[in-house]
Amino acid sequence: MATSAVKVYGWAISPFVSRALLALEEAGVDYELVPMSRQAGDHHRPEHLARNPFGKVPVLEDGDLTLFESHAISRHVLRKHKPELLGTGNLEQAALVDVWFEVEAHQLSPLAIAIVVECIFTPFLGRERNQAVVDENVEKLKKVLEVYEARLSKSKYLAGDFLSLADLSHFTIMHCFMATEYAALVEVLPHVSAWWEGLAARPAAKKVAEFMPVGTAGASKKHE
Amino acid sequence: MATSAVKVYGWAISPFVSRALLALEEAGVDYELVPMSRQAGDHHRPEHLARNPFGKVPVLEDGDLTLFESHAISRHVLRKHKPELLGTGNLEQAALVDVWFEVEAHQLSPLAIAIVVECIFTPFLGRERNQAVVDENVEKLKKVLEVYEARLSKSKYLAGDFLSLADLSHFTIMHCFMATEYAALVEVLPHVSAWWEGLAARPAAKKVAEFMPVGTAGASKKHE
Repeated sequence: MATSAVKVYGWAISPFVSRALLALEEAGVDYELVPMSRQAGDHHRPEHLARNPFGKVPVLEDGDLTLFESHAISRHVLRKHKPELLGTGNLEQAALVDVWFEVEAHQLSPLAIAIVVECIFTPFLGRERNQAVVDENVEKLKKVLEVYEARLSKSKYLAGDFLSLADLSHFTIMHCFMATEYAALVEVLPHVSAWWEGLAARPAAKKVAEFMPVGTAGASKKHE
Repeated sequence: MATSAVKVYGWAISPFVSRALLALEEAGVDYELVPMSRQAGDHHRPEHLARNPFGKVPVLEDGDLTLFESHAISRHVLRKHKPELLGTGNLEQAALVDVWFEVEAHQLSPLAIAIVVECIFTPFLGRERNQAVVDENVEKLKKVLEVYEARLSKSKYLAGDFLSLADLSHFTIMHCFMATEYAALVEVLPHVSAWWEGLAARPAAKKVAEFMPVGTAGASKKHE
């Protein structure tokens, strides 16, 4: 019975799990998604804690190597299979990939995730959204996106005129964010908008988006 | 008039700024720390926004290259001058460096920083600490440190039996944390404790610690 040498553990609706899947899709790696249930608490079971002692997803098994943290997994997959997406071999390009990879993690995603949690996941779980949290994060995200607009008016992608991990790393969080009624924050910015549409049109991104049926109910409100 | 080709902008008491300085010290790079004042709002001035549009510190200037985000800066400095600290050239080592580099950023530091802010910076600014925030983060940090203890009982350093960026990246946050009365959380764990003492004894770490006079007032309470 043939099984893939590469396995990803987790639930693909998570933008962290699907971030790992996107790297694998972009790299053309054959992998198996081993489904787990968050509701059933699979991530707290001993067999998963042996894979990731922090009890989080995703986990990547690549032969004998077991990795966790979605950013580390993405970097590993690309280093092994598509190092040009890390800017490898050019100090300046590699440094700029790293800068915007960290900007995603520390400037944009915390804000976008807070909005997505309140607008999509909280109602899905039957709880009421905290609009004050949404409003606070929307205000901050507007300012962050203005910096992106300025950056993307100077280069086609975040690290320069080449696609990189820095761009890809944004996709799954942004995919969820664009399903909220705040998608217009992106749509009013022509360069960010074009960059986003280019990312979303990539075959790997379309494939991964299929795993993430966050819906467009919120997005329909954006033109109200 | 000779000036260094490498400049760091910011205030060294910030564990983010001193993280960048530590990488430079470890790499033996000659640099100039360009002082800025947080109180005076230097980080919001146009000349700094031209260096980092998010208005944060540190910023590294390396010749014509301007970089921000302390994790990206550290990675660049080591890639250029001490790539062995990134595990470069060995896919497995590089991946494990990345895993524990991300663990620092996403599992340990958010908790340690919350405690440091309440226990050191908040009183310094004349405000009252929020003990509920401290307690919540201390509980979570205990569990995270237990994972570190298990990891460091199997290898001398986080990514294996070699010092790497993953270890170094912890130093400046941990230096602040160890000045709080919660230092005992580390001290009761023999492997984490030995790892920490090894890190703190490095000449580069001692040099950087001089820039960060967070004091040991809190630490004296740890045996109460």
